[in-house]
Amino acid sequence: MSKTIGVLGGGQLGKMLFESGSPSNINYVFLEKSVDCPAALVCRHQIVGDLKDGDKIKQLSSRADVITYEIEHVNVAALKDLENEGKSIIPKPDVLSIIQDKGLQKEFYSNHDIPTLSFVNCTKENLHKEVESWPDEPFVLKHRKGGYDGKGVQILTKNQFKELHSSADQSLMSADGYVIEKMAKNAVEVSVIVAVSQKLNSVSYTPCEMVFDPRSNLMDYLISPSRLSDKINNLCEVIAQKTVEAFCSPGLFAVELFVEPNGKVFVNEIAPRPHNSGHHTIESTYTSQYEQLNRILLNQPLGDTSLIQHAATCNIVGPKNVTGRYYIDKLDKVLEIPGVYVHMYGKSETSPNRKLGHYTILGKNQEAVEKKLMKVKKILTIKSA
Amino acid sequence: MSKTIGVLGGGQLGKMLFESGSPSNINYVFLEKSVDCPAALVCRHQIVGDLKDGDKIKQLSSRADVITYEIEHVNVAALKDLENEGKSIIPKPDVLSIIQDKGLQKEFYSNHDIPTLSFVNCTKENLHKEVESWPDEPFVLKHRKGGYDGKGVQILTKNQFKELHSSADQSLMSADGYVIEKMAKNAVEVSVIVAVSQKLNSVSYTPCEMVFDPRSNLMDYLISPSRLSDKINNLCEVIAQKTVEAFCSPGLFAVELFVEPNGKVFVNEIAPRPHNSGHHTIESTYTSQYEQLNRILLNQPLGDTSLIQHAATCNIVGPKNVTGRYYIDKLDKVLEIPGVYVHMYGKSETSPNRKLGHYTILGKNQEAVEKKLMKVKKILTIKSA
Repeated sequence: MSKTIGVLGGGQLGKMLFESGSPSNINYVFLEKSVDCPAALVCRHQIVGDLKDGDKIKQLSSRADVITYEIEHVNVAALKDLENEGKSIIPKPDVLSIIQDKGLQKEFYSNHDIPTLSFVNCTKENLHKEVESWPDEPFVLKHRKGGYDGKGVQILTKNQFKELHSSADQSLMSADGYVIEKMAKNAVEVSVIVAVSQKLNSVSYTPCEMVFDPRSNLMDYLISPSRLSDKINNLCEVIAQKTVEAFCSPGLFAVELFVEPNGKVFVNEIAPRPHNSGHHTIESTYTSQYEQLNRILLNQPLGDTSLIQHAATCNIVGPKNVTGRYYIDKLDKVLEIPGVYVHMYGKSETSPNRKLGHYTILGKNQEAVEKKLMKVKKILTIKSA
Repeated sequence: MSKTIGVLGGGQLGKMLFESGSPSNINYVFLEKSVDCPAALVCRHQIVGDLKDGDKIKQLSSRADVITYEIEHVNVAALKDLENEGKSIIPKPDVLSIIQDKGLQKEFYSNHDIPTLSFVNCTKENLHKEVESWPDEPFVLKHRKGGYDGKGVQILTKNQFKELHSSADQSLMSADGYVIEKMAKNAVEVSVIVAVSQKLNSVSYTPCEMVFDPRSNLMDYLISPSRLSDKINNLCEVIAQKTVEAFCSPGLFAVELFVEPNGKVFVNEIAPRPHNSGHHTIESTYTSQYEQLNRILLNQPLGDTSLIQHAATCNIVGPKNVTGRYYIDKLDKVLEIPGVYVHMYGKSETSPNRKLGHYTILGKNQEAVEKKLMKVKKILTIKSA
């Protein structure tokens, strides 16, 4: 009777997906080349193989009733073939084709009347010309393909670009082409998780704000609801839902948005899978992003997305000076604070900036959450074992 | 670095213990004779063997840093041997020695000044004489040993007893002896989960009330907080904590209490493990009973036990007319109701009254919870597959 979900990828998102399905005994099988990946800690059904390997993807399909992916960098053609044979692939492979190419993604938004920052797509050949005719202000230069976690994205002035160009810098040699994009001005970065059922009903979660460290300018933590006004938060949800609906596909999506101080909202990009900015939903909402994806995959009704309490999430990343085996120092001190949930991804070794886990903090209001967060940030340290 | 928890028993409590430890990657190994038990669905480290088998328990011990049990009917002598060799067994085997014998348990309460209903312990030889001198009112007759889930417990009038006695009924032939106990009068049945750390600090959870069906007189559902006054709820927590502290052992305990309409509270019995009445804590509190037990076993600080929302739990049991493979009918209709969490224990076949799973319902107040509960009870049905 019970259906099996096939997952491309066995990272922490796969592990958390499994954990959310375990109470109702959902069956999973996942494809992942590393045998000691996070998902392997909880799920015994693994096909060992590369996410680009069409044969392995077929094998996965033969063992699953429905297929999803927890990472975008997979063999889309293989998924399309399976879809054409009648297999249920969620989200649809077409979504991947669009979002794997940042240029196509931007065009998709402008074609669908979805607010996004001005841009121009170009090849490596006409890049120089396009930059020259760009307004005289810093811009964002993105590789159309292959970027991940900020890689392949540069913020440049025209002068900086000229220097790179005259030195024939490797970063300007991508055969896949580029997007030149306007920079958001003093924008708040917000993410909205949107869930779309197989019947194409959709619901959104309360916006989550990425809070940046003013000194390092790196993302420090995530907080939900965002600290924007209710009106703007609502607008973010409306735009996020419209964006996702334009893809006409079931699935769970994270929509990253820029909100400028004047209240203008722009779609940056989407991720067609559970997202960092939705980790907190495990503890803070009635239906976590993972349970929601399970419901979608099993063609069950969508769950309630209401936020029960204010929440914050902070990544636990490998510090610069530690590599190899590690432990969390003073974990006990952290666990003494009520409403703190530590998730570890089962990675046996750390390296600088490696995502090892995250923690979520619940509280009655934003102040309570931030107070606890500052406490945990001071205490929790990754040390060499 | 990371410790391994050894668990005697691989039932649903073991499965839920594992599920609560999975986000922080706790290692488990469990002993259970059935290879397709609930825990085996999530934990790949099983020793196949009987819970009475001393050698298998030693094997478990050799693979674990700390031992616990999710069922009382285990080989206590083997656990005591291991404890004497310096192994950490939580709760202490002495607790099991006391609670495995209902007569000893009752004596323990009276010796420790813990309120419990009047009783007398007797052998099968002097049972008749003791019943004759008992006040002329219905009483509870319990086998001192081996009872489970209501088995070995009878409510009798003196006349009913005489009939059984004159027919030399099998139920009066236990070599382990009996407890004759006064019946609680129109009592509300309440359970309080108490957690004791390795440093013997203790915390209690909000009382949970067992609500009985007035027609069948069988337990219908559990609700937390109980519908008693705050004052009585507090008293229940105080008495439960005192009861557990008397055992001088770390562990997680459920204390079952009778509350009479005059406000008198009596301890019925304790279970030294996660309990049915604590299932709701998975969704309703900051720290579930399972996470709490993990913290105790790993010598971490106790977690916050506050109830975040009102909650109810109802067992999903095999109906009388269905055996073999089964499915949940109209699960989709249930999943449409917000704040409903269905847990299934992975039992492939049903039989009449078999516990197949449970569901927990969250709501802002008791009325909201009970309203949803009535809805789910009407919808959810187990059918033959």
